[in-house]
Amino acid sequence: MSSIFTRIVNRELPAKIFLEDEQVIVIEDIRPRSPVHLLIIPKTETTNFYETPLETLSMLNEYVKKVAAMLEIDDHFQVAINNGLGQEIDHLHFHFLSDRGADKLQFTPIG
Amino acid sequence: MSSIFTRIVNRELPAKIFLEDEQVIVIEDIRPRSPVHLLIIPKTETTNFYETPLETLSMLNEYVKKVAAMLEIDDHFQVAINNGLGQEIDHLHFHFLSDRGADKLQFTPIG
Repeated sequence: MSSIFTRIVNRELPAKIFLEDEQVIVIEDIRPRSPVHLLIIPKTETTNFYETPLETLSMLNEYVKKVAAMLEIDDHFQVAINNGLGQEIDHLHFHFLSDRGADKLQFTPIG
Repeated sequence: MSSIFTRIVNRELPAKIFLEDEQVIVIEDIRPRSPVHLLIIPKTETTNFYETPLETLSMLNEYVKKVAAMLEIDDHFQVAINNGLGQEIDHLHFHFLSDRGADKLQFTPIG
């Protein structure tokens, strides 16, 4: 069974997509807890941070910087990673949060 | 002026050290908000996540895994990074948090 995120990638479930390429999809959290609350998700399914190779984590770090630059908040954001504890979906994702930059958010809705 | 963390490394300020080597120091947060609340800090001073090279971030990711393994909570922890927003000390640090594993914490106090 594919993860919810993989099903979003496959257009089987709705989501608000901020960014997508071959490696990564960035969507809005379904229950945003700040004006900017994105999930940065590798398309390759991997359970959690601990189980994920350093190269994949580094690639995600690069996308964190990319998203911060796109929203023009490179000096004002937070990253949170739930590894088991607080993790609701067993497909690695980085939470990207900020109280600024929401005016730069543009989503492509699917579903 | 050196950062508070560099001054801890230089033994000019007190701290509870969990782990230290040439690259990194891991200390307990001065105001722990969970039973395990460590800060993983590169010895090289760098302001925040955005300004830090991917190689350094990757090195810190490796230490996150190392700490999780040492505390035997590789499936149960959280990582939080405040980049400007919520960041109190302008020397990059990863917060490592868990409600488990505190029984495995052993600190070397300094100061």
